[in-house]
Amino acid sequence: MPEYKAPLRDMKFVMDELLDMQTHYQSLGADECTEDMVDAILSEGAKFCENVLAPLNRVGDEEGCTWSEDGVKTPTGFKEAYQQYVEGGWPSMTCDPEYGGQGLPASIGIAVSEMVGSSNWAWGMYPGLSHGAVDTVEMHGTEEQKQTYLTKLISGEWTGTMCLTEPHCGSDLGLLKTKAEPNADGSYNITGTKIFISAGEHDMAENIIHICLARLPDAPKGTKGISLFIVPKMLPNEDGSVGERNAVACGSIEHKMGIHGNSTCVMNFDGAKGWLIGPENKGLNCMFTFMNFARIGTALQGSSAMESSFQGALTYAKDRLAMRSLSGPKAPEKAADPIIVHPDVRRMLLTIKSLGEGGRALAYLTAKQADIVKSPNSSEEAKKEADELLGFLTPIAKAFLTEVGFECTSHGMQVYGGHGFIAEWGMEQLMRDVRISMMYEGTTGIQALDLLGRKVLMTQGEALKRFTKIVHKFCKENEGNEAIAQFVAPLAEHNKEWGDLTMKIGMAAMKNRDEVGASSVDYLMYSGYVCLAYLWAEMAKVAQEKLDAGTEEEAFYKAKLQTAKFYFDRILPRTRAHAVTMLSGAENLMDMEEENFAFL
Amino acid sequence: MPEYKAPLRDMKFVMDELLDMQTHYQSLGADECTEDMVDAILSEGAKFCENVLAPLNRVGDEEGCTWSEDGVKTPTGFKEAYQQYVEGGWPSMTCDPEYGGQGLPASIGIAVSEMVGSSNWAWGMYPGLSHGAVDTVEMHGTEEQKQTYLTKLISGEWTGTMCLTEPHCGSDLGLLKTKAEPNADGSYNITGTKIFISAGEHDMAENIIHICLARLPDAPKGTKGISLFIVPKMLPNEDGSVGERNAVACGSIEHKMGIHGNSTCVMNFDGAKGWLIGPENKGLNCMFTFMNFARIGTALQGSSAMESSFQGALTYAKDRLAMRSLSGPKAPEKAADPIIVHPDVRRMLLTIKSLGEGGRALAYLTAKQADIVKSPNSSEEAKKEADELLGFLTPIAKAFLTEVGFECTSHGMQVYGGHGFIAEWGMEQLMRDVRISMMYEGTTGIQALDLLGRKVLMTQGEALKRFTKIVHKFCKENEGNEAIAQFVAPLAEHNKEWGDLTMKIGMAAMKNRDEVGASSVDYLMYSGYVCLAYLWAEMAKVAQEKLDAGTEEEAFYKAKLQTAKFYFDRILPRTRAHAVTMLSGAENLMDMEEENFAFL
Repeated sequence: MPEYKAPLRDMKFVMDELLDMQTHYQSLGADECTEDMVDAILSEGAKFCENVLAPLNRVGDEEGCTWSEDGVKTPTGFKEAYQQYVEGGWPSMTCDPEYGGQGLPASIGIAVSEMVGSSNWAWGMYPGLSHGAVDTVEMHGTEEQKQTYLTKLISGEWTGTMCLTEPHCGSDLGLLKTKAEPNADGSYNITGTKIFISAGEHDMAENIIHICLARLPDAPKGTKGISLFIVPKMLPNEDGSVGERNAVACGSIEHKMGIHGNSTCVMNFDGAKGWLIGPENKGLNCMFTFMNFARIGTALQGSSAMESSFQGALTYAKDRLAMRSLSGPKAPEKAADPIIVHPDVRRMLLTIKSLGEGGRALAYLTAKQADIVKSPNSSEEAKKEADELLGFLTPIAKAFLTEVGFECTSHGMQVYGGHGFIAEWGMEQLMRDVRISMMYEGTTGIQALDLLGRKVLMTQGEALKRFTKIVHKFCKENEGNEAIAQFVAPLAEHNKEWGDLTMKIGMAAMKNRDEVGASSVDYLMYSGYVCLAYLWAEMAKVAQEKLDAGTEEEAFYKAKLQTAKFYFDRILPRTRAHAVTMLSGAENLMDMEEENFAFL
Repeated sequence: MPEYKAPLRDMKFVMDELLDMQTHYQSLGADECTEDMVDAILSEGAKFCENVLAPLNRVGDEEGCTWSEDGVKTPTGFKEAYQQYVEGGWPSMTCDPEYGGQGLPASIGIAVSEMVGSSNWAWGMYPGLSHGAVDTVEMHGTEEQKQTYLTKLISGEWTGTMCLTEPHCGSDLGLLKTKAEPNADGSYNITGTKIFISAGEHDMAENIIHICLARLPDAPKGTKGISLFIVPKMLPNEDGSVGERNAVACGSIEHKMGIHGNSTCVMNFDGAKGWLIGPENKGLNCMFTFMNFARIGTALQGSSAMESSFQGALTYAKDRLAMRSLSGPKAPEKAADPIIVHPDVRRMLLTIKSLGEGGRALAYLTAKQADIVKSPNSSEEAKKEADELLGFLTPIAKAFLTEVGFECTSHGMQVYGGHGFIAEWGMEQLMRDVRISMMYEGTTGIQALDLLGRKVLMTQGEALKRFTKIVHKFCKENEGNEAIAQFVAPLAEHNKEWGDLTMKIGMAAMKNRDEVGASSVDYLMYSGYVCLAYLWAEMAKVAQEKLDAGTEEEAFYKAKLQTAKFYFDRILPRTRAHAVTMLSGAENLMDMEEENFAFL
């Protein structure tokens, strides 16, 4: 099993040196977030992840969760780790101080979540899902609902879930059938079956608060007739203590490819008591308000997995001996050279490294926008701008980072050769765990439609321009900077091409709406590679400046420049394929008759 | 679980219409291989695979193999299926008639293996590994060894293994330690530990014949001191019956990501009795003589998995309802449209279909060369030519088809959305099972070095030219063919570029040997895409001719042309990325100091 070591140096590089979070925290009015304070949080988080969560990662995979009539048992150690997490005050870190939260910026939470995710993603989903429930109640709950539920969710005493998916519908929630019938006392009886409910039932907390989508009796059809309900597993007493059992139960848990440590439940609501949260029939809108944030959380699964995979692969590549370097022995005293001398092994390692570090930068940049959106200190203009940037970057971060995250866990396995296939090494678990991230919280296809259809084309390209302007400004400012010209020039070309491609797709889409879906995933991947190119150019600039100024950490900054070079040389050219493919038209997809796909 | 239906129509298209196997079989002198006869074999094989093997695929995954002191138990039904397989005469199909084989061409065996592989890869590995043992004894065994072992292996009464890998070495067999000490009676005592031995121990047959690599006491170091030994699990009596137990045993079975139904064994040789096969210290050379063929078998795992994944994904895409087509409802009578109306779902389906059908063509083309090499009827010149083509195509088929096979099983899962992650649907098993194919029988990196280093550069490009000449001839012949010009023109461009890229890499490699490893995997993937482009152009030509001539199967041939168009529009452009990347130089890989890969 690869040992996890939190990459604090690189996290701090992104936070302090690339994104200047210190200035950012001051502008949010978060004066308590001094560098020392943030460092202390990250160090404490690192210890917890390295020492408590990481050792449970394989346990969780091997044992999985077990269902019985009495409930779901989580793997050995999961419950105790959660207790420690609660005692450490981690659940409340970024939550509203009025209800017991610590009110820290979301971006600090994201940094901690990355470490949790790298060390044990399946475990991290329990508090992760709670966070979704917290956001919903915080934004849409009544004061009474907040008093009853929010305090306990924020403290971590209770956990929460998001009950959206049903057996026949996931991406298309307009089809959902779960019904909510009003009672005389203002509550509702919720009846229906929900599936894929992460952390739907478990033994970590005394109560579980389900945020459940359902239809009122007279609701309009489709997505405009969906309302949101709070459905607690145990009905709370007046004094806030846990009372009677509600009529909601886990029918079974799914057998899945990965994230075995997380209980993925079929939840049966049999006239369970629930309370409306937010306005009637506006449930989906309420969900959308925090979906961007939930999706950054999923994007993190991609970058977290890249970090773990990289650490595992690097260790092995330095240890394992096989063959001699083609350019002459590098470890003549040994029976063979360590495989890190071989160019193709380095290609795999650097692919993971460049996408992983670039991915971290993208996730944190996105979280920075979320900070601004959420802060009462932000001006309306700053909020609007950050919100639009957040909306643009989120589908890219979610889909691109999970796609390349999956790819990179495969490279990590490949470095091990046949051993990568063997469970003991832990590399194959990383791949099985991360594979879901391309599907839940909106598949890559859904994210791509959100990006190209809703965010870019529906704004006549404004959302894209907001970002390309930032890139353009960077390129202009660094036009004469010879040291990083090798990055700035191709970045500027891509930045221009991005707009051109968008224009062409927009024109084609006016004639045929299928052109959007036909080009969307290529467009999204292209966008992801350009976003990372921008971030690598920025990182290269920072590194070059440090080197020019003289630094004790020369090796660190030199490695940043080398990784940037690798990214531009060997990863960015993938845009050449996507640029051609996205313009190839919808006909090559749509012309084939349904019955002619196979002749069996 | 996706139901498997043998794609006989497409298999016959490749065999009869694309590769003209009938003429080929006649030139081999295999007159018994009439179209009717081949059809009958394929139909019988299809029935066995659809009815017996496919239903055991998930059983094998769920149960796995179980180890005890007494041996390894295979999953429920595996043993009985093997019995049926033996009774049906399948093991002997392509083997030497002198020892009980039916002497059919290898390419027919490959077609049957494809069906076995699509329906249950883990099961298919038991007879598959036997085949390796058969080839070894057939080619290098003494008459006595053939009489003792070959007959029983060919009949399927006994099975075989290949014992190469040791804990500390896989790709680099020069490091192997297992030793062979001569006895006075001409036998040897074999001592050492072998790992990853597929089908190393099981309950399907009364004896298991291990072909084991070991070192003689006075053997030179490295790969030049390796010899090959036959080590039976049960020592055969004079009369050929099974006698005493030999000192070779399975120490444990591996816990793996996939192919759970196959017993992957740690084999302990504790002074086990063995007999030298082939000349002393020439073990590796003996292995190489049939390795090409074993690698076509592994290439098949990629194309087999694509077929299964495609069938599963297509069924779901037609059934599952979600959202409306962007260009207007396609199934207004239903609550939503089936997802096959969405362009991005089609993109995934057609990606699998075009790579899967193209992959089949490549595997069969490669097998056709193996037929020629093996046939006593082939002229020396034909043999030489086929052998060189086989050597060139094999690493491409092995690595490229397993890489895209893995990619395609991921697309197949993705079509299912979240359901793809759930074991019951069977789509995630396909991915877990196929992942090993990129590692065993030589990793993708090893294949790429074999292709670029050994096959292409060491022959001064001759091996490549042999193939590009074939492509060039095709392009010349079809220059004026307007109907397929959309395929011929880009194919000709790629064919030329392929040579140019090779030349550039060759020049760079003369200055720096690391350039070979730095460009090899990109070169291999590029080569794979061009090979499939050639085959798709050929297939398009066949289809166009059938349509021009008038046919009852218009839909079938139209779909071929549409799939070819998809391939050229949306898959072939991937070469744009590889072409740039492979020329980017070794520095971006080699410059980073080993200790600077991470700062943890």
